[in-house]
Amino acid sequence: MLYVVGVGICKEHLTKRAIELIKNADLIYGSKRALKLAEDYISCEKRLIKYCIEEYSRIEKESIDKNVVVLSTGDPMVSGLGSKINGIVEPGISSVQLALAKLGIDLCDVAVVDAHAKKAENLEELLKLRHLLILADKNFDVSVFGDKEIYLIENLCMRNENIIFGKAVDLDVKSDYTIVFVRR
Amino acid sequence: MLYVVGVGICKEHLTKRAIELIKNADLIYGSKRALKLAEDYISCEKRLIKYCIEEYSRIEKESIDKNVVVLSTGDPMVSGLGSKINGIVEPGISSVQLALAKLGIDLCDVAVVDAHAKKAENLEELLKLRHLLILADKNFDVSVFGDKEIYLIENLCMRNENIIFGKAVDLDVKSDYTIVFVRR
Repeated sequence: MLYVVGVGICKEHLTKRAIELIKNADLIYGSKRALKLAEDYISCEKRLIKYCIEEYSRIEKESIDKNVVVLSTGDPMVSGLGSKINGIVEPGISSVQLALAKLGIDLCDVAVVDAHAKKAENLEELLKLRHLLILADKNFDVSVFGDKEIYLIENLCMRNENIIFGKAVDLDVKSDYTIVFVRR
Repeated sequence: MLYVVGVGICKEHLTKRAIELIKNADLIYGSKRALKLAEDYISCEKRLIKYCIEEYSRIEKESIDKNVVVLSTGDPMVSGLGSKINGIVEPGISSVQLALAKLGIDLCDVAVVDAHAKKAENLEELLKLRHLLILADKNFDVSVFGDKEIYLIENLCMRNENIIFGKAVDLDVKSDYTIVFVRR
């Protein structure tokens, strides 16, 4: 069996279901950060995952005769591996949830946009209908929002977690783990 | 202190952080379902919550001199209490995450719409930009999507969980715990 398991983004974000799957695994893949978040419950072999389609299909074959768990930081269905690897997905707490909790904004009032290592599309059209919650990296240019006041939520659950509020034109994305919030 | 704590929607969805907050509470509020999901960790007084602004402001005052936890089924920031009660929000696994896991669809490709006991707005415009994931009840009329093929995901994590696929015109929402998925 192949499971894609969300590990959350803070220490102690793991659900009891996720912990059970990790404990029962024969082999575990993940990023350095994901393996670290789950380390207390890993008793089998663990390997760093490569982010490419060949690796995903190799892991799928490998899981035919053993219990393989692929860890995903946050939730596997939020800019994650859940839609890329053909396994059973176990949800985890995502940075989106944490950002919304800090902002006091409901998910049903936003559009979540993946601008992590890719170009975000339809920002202008979406902003007419919803607030934007953008998963951004250093390459994302917030000056497109001009004089609008926005939030930059940086490095959630890391030692250098930080929230900045100001006019978009005056701000820069300085961390690859940044969430940009723009009010409709 | 006042905490609004997501309890997930399935047994064992609780995170270790949520469990800790529940164990340390002096008083716990929640719906029947939320109290049931957390029951293994509740050792203090528990009360059914009333869903009105007067109750929320009473609870806020009550939390000045004790640790009060308000449980929220799923995640407090998904059509939940997190944006209505002035407390510290601890995320939980929502029905949205579970539905996306079952569909194999990433959150960044959908707009989540709250049509639970309220009229959904801008459906047509949103559908031009995103797939729709609609939190629906029996009053939601899917026939507005005409000949489109849609999914109805009913009663997630309950005994009568069910997924139906078909043309919108041929389907009816029969449960107040239904998620409707419409492809862009």
